[in-house]
Amino acid sequence: MTVIMDGRALADKMQENLRKEVLNMKASGIVPGLAVLLVGEDPASQTYVRNKERSGEKIGIHSVVERLPAAISEEELFQKIQQYNQDEKIHGILVQLPLPKHIDEQRVLHGIDPKKDVDGFHPTNMGQLFIGDPWMVPCTPYGIMKLLEEYKIDISGKNAVIIGRSNIVGKPMAQLLLMSNATVTMAHSKTENLTQIAAKADILVVAIGRGHFVTKNFVKKGAVVIDVGMNRDADGKLIGDVDFDAVKEVAGYITPVPKGVGPMTITMLMEQTIANARKQLENT
Amino acid sequence: MTVIMDGRALADKMQENLRKEVLNMKASGIVPGLAVLLVGEDPASQTYVRNKERSGEKIGIHSVVERLPAAISEEELFQKIQQYNQDEKIHGILVQLPLPKHIDEQRVLHGIDPKKDVDGFHPTNMGQLFIGDPWMVPCTPYGIMKLLEEYKIDISGKNAVIIGRSNIVGKPMAQLLLMSNATVTMAHSKTENLTQIAAKADILVVAIGRGHFVTKNFVKKGAVVIDVGMNRDADGKLIGDVDFDAVKEVAGYITPVPKGVGPMTITMLMEQTIANARKQLENT
Repeated sequence: MTVIMDGRALADKMQENLRKEVLNMKASGIVPGLAVLLVGEDPASQTYVRNKERSGEKIGIHSVVERLPAAISEEELFQKIQQYNQDEKIHGILVQLPLPKHIDEQRVLHGIDPKKDVDGFHPTNMGQLFIGDPWMVPCTPYGIMKLLEEYKIDISGKNAVIIGRSNIVGKPMAQLLLMSNATVTMAHSKTENLTQIAAKADILVVAIGRGHFVTKNFVKKGAVVIDVGMNRDADGKLIGDVDFDAVKEVAGYITPVPKGVGPMTITMLMEQTIANARKQLENT
Repeated sequence: MTVIMDGRALADKMQENLRKEVLNMKASGIVPGLAVLLVGEDPASQTYVRNKERSGEKIGIHSVVERLPAAISEEELFQKIQQYNQDEKIHGILVQLPLPKHIDEQRVLHGIDPKKDVDGFHPTNMGQLFIGDPWMVPCTPYGIMKLLEEYKIDISGKNAVIIGRSNIVGKPMAQLLLMSNATVTMAHSKTENLTQIAAKADILVVAIGRGHFVTKNFVKKGAVVIDVGMNRDADGKLIGDVDFDAVKEVAGYITPVPKGVGPMTITMLMEQTIANARKQLENT
């Protein structure tokens, strides 16, 4: 029997626990605060930001969303970030990507205080993860680790193959699995014999951004298959990078799309914001 | 015919080019400067530092070696580093590791200006490498990339397996090979079926610190084998992690120990120090 890994259910459970923790924090006088900076009017970004706002509200986080004009200068955006870096009521800062072309994303990310960088994209946070002493971790791979933990997946010594090497999913995923003692293979568009390499995986993470790219012959019988993809098919339906119906015939565990990895990402964003507030509370 | 990759010869060639470049720089009024901080009296560290001093002298770099007492406080060491961070005549700062137990290595590394961190160990430099936009790169993997380049090894799409996941060799090696479009597998002491995984490698990098650990059955016919090991056998002879005599029967390319990777490491340290001085020159 293939187990469908229910990210929605785990996210709900975790968010409910976070809600209770925030209630207790408020009694101690601290409200976790999250600042979200949205530049321009990209519709997908607007949806993501609204979802973050809504989850924050549900949990009781104080969210500030700054909707900034697409024409804002890098310098002005920088000053906004500085203001939140210094604001004691703000425990997490997130700049919604992508940014307009006239703004240098890397320079902006460098401007966020790494200790408030709840997306985990600051190079210092990437470096801390890389050396095995993480401060803040990119939320999608972090959420996947929680899912693997929830389903008691054995990671140590196992073959993990990651398809896709983005800075925000593939690479940090590799480091987190390595920290759990997996043997980790990073595969990508230039990989030769990808199907055979994937078919050796005990744990297969797919984050390549191509609908139904991974079919049955990529998957070893009983493997754990994690699908990070969010694509639209010809009918506008949301589909993953994995051909779910076919692959679930061979996989031991598989995440659906939607309701798999997606809900975990936003949950980890909340978790990291609250964790920062928790630290502030412990230091008072 | 197996090709022995001559790290000594490439290092000599590169160092000779660096020496000429430094001569030209001096004519323009800039002398590349390297500060080496050595804490305590560890004999191995003393040897390493002497070698760095000697290479620096040969190339014409201005090296300052601070030999500090083992009892120095973290705060005092920090102040020394600050002094070199601000010194315009110093383009590279290196704190010889390991440090005495009462000093927090990570805190010290964080104290070095990332732009002068010619060892590439600062978490920000690790992060920059991780996101594919390196500033300074750990010298051993950087030197290995130069060796692969010198011998025109085809990397893109190939299977690279790295045995050993240290922060200063295995992990940055993985990122550099990934940037050259290899499919990269990180293996280590917890890896199951290590022999079979290694035997699939087109490029095998061994950095596990166990003398003659890799034998013939770990190596695919024609593979490129890079040996980072520096171990002493029962007779005190320097040996690698790879059983050179046996493996060279099957490998296509192999680095010897000594005179393989070792001389490249120190060369890249000099290269990165001079590169920083070059930038200063370009900005004046």
